[in-house]
Amino acid sequence: MKLKIKEVDVDSSEPGVLIHDDDCLEIGVQEGDRVKISGPKPTILLVSRSDTLMERGFMAVSSSVVKKCGLKDGDVVNVVYAPKPDSVRSIRKKMDGERLEKEEIHAVVEDILESNLTKIEISAWLTALYINGMDIGEIADFTVAMAETGDMIRFDRTPVFDFHSLGGVPGNKITPIVVSIVAAAGIMIPKTSSRAISSACGTSDFVETFCNVEIDAESLKEIAQEVGGVFSWGGSMNLAPVDDMVIKVEHPLGINPRAQMLASIMSKKLAMGATHIVVDIPTGAGTKVPTIEVARQYAKDLMELGDRIGMHVECAITYADQPIGYAVGPNLEARECISILEGNKHPAAVIEKACDCAGIILEIAGIPNGAAKAKEILESGDAYRKFMEIVVAQGGRPDLKSDDLKPGMYSYEFRSPKSGYIHAIKNKEIVSVAKAAGAPADKGAGILFSKKKGQRVEEGEVLFTIYADNEAKLRRAKDVATKYQPMDIEGMLIKRVSPLTAR
Amino acid sequence: MKLKIKEVDVDSSEPGVLIHDDDCLEIGVQEGDRVKISGPKPTILLVSRSDTLMERGFMAVSSSVVKKCGLKDGDVVNVVYAPKPDSVRSIRKKMDGERLEKEEIHAVVEDILESNLTKIEISAWLTALYINGMDIGEIADFTVAMAETGDMIRFDRTPVFDFHSLGGVPGNKITPIVVSIVAAAGIMIPKTSSRAISSACGTSDFVETFCNVEIDAESLKEIAQEVGGVFSWGGSMNLAPVDDMVIKVEHPLGINPRAQMLASIMSKKLAMGATHIVVDIPTGAGTKVPTIEVARQYAKDLMELGDRIGMHVECAITYADQPIGYAVGPNLEARECISILEGNKHPAAVIEKACDCAGIILEIAGIPNGAAKAKEILESGDAYRKFMEIVVAQGGRPDLKSDDLKPGMYSYEFRSPKSGYIHAIKNKEIVSVAKAAGAPADKGAGILFSKKKGQRVEEGEVLFTIYADNEAKLRRAKDVATKYQPMDIEGMLIKRVSPLTAR
Repeated sequence: MKLKIKEVDVDSSEPGVLIHDDDCLEIGVQEGDRVKISGPKPTILLVSRSDTLMERGFMAVSSSVVKKCGLKDGDVVNVVYAPKPDSVRSIRKKMDGERLEKEEIHAVVEDILESNLTKIEISAWLTALYINGMDIGEIADFTVAMAETGDMIRFDRTPVFDFHSLGGVPGNKITPIVVSIVAAAGIMIPKTSSRAISSACGTSDFVETFCNVEIDAESLKEIAQEVGGVFSWGGSMNLAPVDDMVIKVEHPLGINPRAQMLASIMSKKLAMGATHIVVDIPTGAGTKVPTIEVARQYAKDLMELGDRIGMHVECAITYADQPIGYAVGPNLEARECISILEGNKHPAAVIEKACDCAGIILEIAGIPNGAAKAKEILESGDAYRKFMEIVVAQGGRPDLKSDDLKPGMYSYEFRSPKSGYIHAIKNKEIVSVAKAAGAPADKGAGILFSKKKGQRVEEGEVLFTIYADNEAKLRRAKDVATKYQPMDIEGMLIKRVSPLTAR
Repeated sequence: MKLKIKEVDVDSSEPGVLIHDDDCLEIGVQEGDRVKISGPKPTILLVSRSDTLMERGFMAVSSSVVKKCGLKDGDVVNVVYAPKPDSVRSIRKKMDGERLEKEEIHAVVEDILESNLTKIEISAWLTALYINGMDIGEIADFTVAMAETGDMIRFDRTPVFDFHSLGGVPGNKITPIVVSIVAAAGIMIPKTSSRAISSACGTSDFVETFCNVEIDAESLKEIAQEVGGVFSWGGSMNLAPVDDMVIKVEHPLGINPRAQMLASIMSKKLAMGATHIVVDIPTGAGTKVPTIEVARQYAKDLMELGDRIGMHVECAITYADQPIGYAVGPNLEARECISILEGNKHPAAVIEKACDCAGIILEIAGIPNGAAKAKEILESGDAYRKFMEIVVAQGGRPDLKSDDLKPGMYSYEFRSPKSGYIHAIKNKEIVSVAKAAGAPADKGAGILFSKKKGQRVEEGEVLFTIYADNEAKLRRAKDVATKYQPMDIEGMLIKRVSPLTAR
């Protein structure tokens, strides 16, 4: 039927159209069905119905969609029922526990990219993946489809190394150290990182405090091939773009189905042209990977998937029962990271983890005793010089010093409520406190630990300091810390158990 | 943080707010998270982000939500992160294949009712129900929760009988006949029906061509207790309202999880105060229930569920390999239905099905030889007189005749492309043709069969006539019929198979 466009000045999250109930009946569509509207660029839109907000004969369409269709306010267009895309059938198939063919997976990915699938459908897709899973062959097809629906970078020479961390542990600032060591050894490692999704500070969130991370594909290729290393933000290129669209539905559900997670990591690496990759799997309470068994399964999956898509994959299962190092938050993590490159021996755990991970890469590249060699490159200052080369290539200051990175002006010392030993530092609660303080948006916000797990503290001693860029957020973070008590302090004797305590 | 309300004159399907990316970062929310906004009525809203459509410091909120919050355009309110409702955890639990407790199920239902769950979350819920299912105890809790979150009708006397059809077969116009026979036998049967969701014509869609179906709970109770029977539209009362909200998500996914379907049927019956119910399960190709085995499982489920919630349930598995009777579409079905009550012996299959179903109810109520007794009541004219009593009580004309119901002015005779036997009449394709013709919104639209399954036809003979209220829709329906060929015509010999056809 013919309807007149009423342009509305706000966008919906899905390209939709609001139509009067009776007109919907006339067209033969329900809420959530699709219609095709005629015009210079015929477009499929999602139907919402109302009998109070719309007059008959009109349809409300957002400005951006009106423009996309090549139409304008007041235009009268023909509106007809449009069938669901075929990929909805593949989603149903996965809901029914069946295996999907390469073409079916590709169509789902393509339809997510083109906004042909609604949030309801993407949610059903992810839920079906979460419950019914995919076999490794399906995941490989999924990975390739996700990579191929975006830009693909191809370097002029190989091997192209990469390093990835599954994340989930706060304070994990090793990436620039690993990249600097590896590049200093003459191995090309164009590393792309992400910003925080649910964490307090992603690698790009702290790297951008001292150099530009928004680097396009052309410059990335140039820097990688000339300097050897890059630490850029993956989001500034169009790598596996479907992943970012899926995250918008995954995040509210709080799920990350195995198939989606594996394809998400590896599709970006594939799109980046990586040929060899080391994956850090932080393992411990409050991370994404609670136990060694789960970590081994991830490692197995990643390596098998690498085999299928022609990529050499090795994994590092790393200790992550507490935050890595002493600093959490953009400026604080940047300072700790750079100070290690400058020669500081503290915190030893960060140095050890960075050298172990870099060492695996060196060994894959044919350099024996990788970890020792990595440490040598770090201690000699070669890693620092390479780091500065990369920083300058990414537009950072040539006289950058770790002390340039300052914590927020407002701080609060969180003190121990009792004497004892630190039995646990809870990763998730630390993230909540740092986020309450304003991280990662406020660069000075974060946490600096005075004590780590296993150490003795006396009542009233400072456990950690919260930093914030403004007073209100500091107060908020203090409240969160007080409520969550992110450190467990207990005596050596946790509980006395005797048959007759009264005896 | 503080944001200024920018009221927008269009409604989104979910109570949401559009906030600038940077403000989202400041508040600490992602797309799909929730915020709580302060004001006379603090309200939780769903976050959409944009860096192009919103200025910093503002948030776009639809007029209806602004009003609901007791605010107005330009008001500055405090906006803070709000956690997901606890029921999201129960959805995750169901995704993980776990059993849900009564309280958890109740909370999910309550949160759907209160619009506290997003479409993404409801989609995950339905997908998890579809894949992981519920045991009968969970379904009973689900049923009671769905009933208790709406109005509950209680009659002054029992037993209260009800009749329900799972639907899925076009032309199933038996409900008014069953209700009239049963009520004529002195048994109270306040039947509520639905309008078409995906079919061409629900019971209420054709009943409303000859009397009012939008009857409130008070009048329904009065008519049922005085006249004995009612055929009203369930949607005009607030019975198990969550069901209607869930359908909006189920429909686009094209699923109807067993748990949801069973709870949906039985919660409405429970809310209606029914104590005894007979369920018609149309079984055959192209319906919801393809085989007898599946039908038996539904029957078992419905009876077990009845036991749990204290309702006597019996089922009738009925033949539905082709449309019921000769008419599909509102006026056409109403005419066929009333003409049977008036004494017409055609179509015999409709009479037989109605009497068989009514017969089961009579037997449950203690009347022996139910089907024979039902036929007697129909043939004696008692059912017709009761029917007219109900019609008049529901505001219909006392001089109603079946011939008052006219098919649409525009018609097209669909002729057989060849000679042979009708091997199949495809239910789904018939529904598509009738919908294309304008059913159920256009009351004259529909299909009248000249031939049914198994009959002999000659090339060029009329198979069925399509009726429509306007020419464009008639043309559309004709195109759909030509494309789908809803009848299979073959010779007695379908295919010759011989080892050497050329011999």
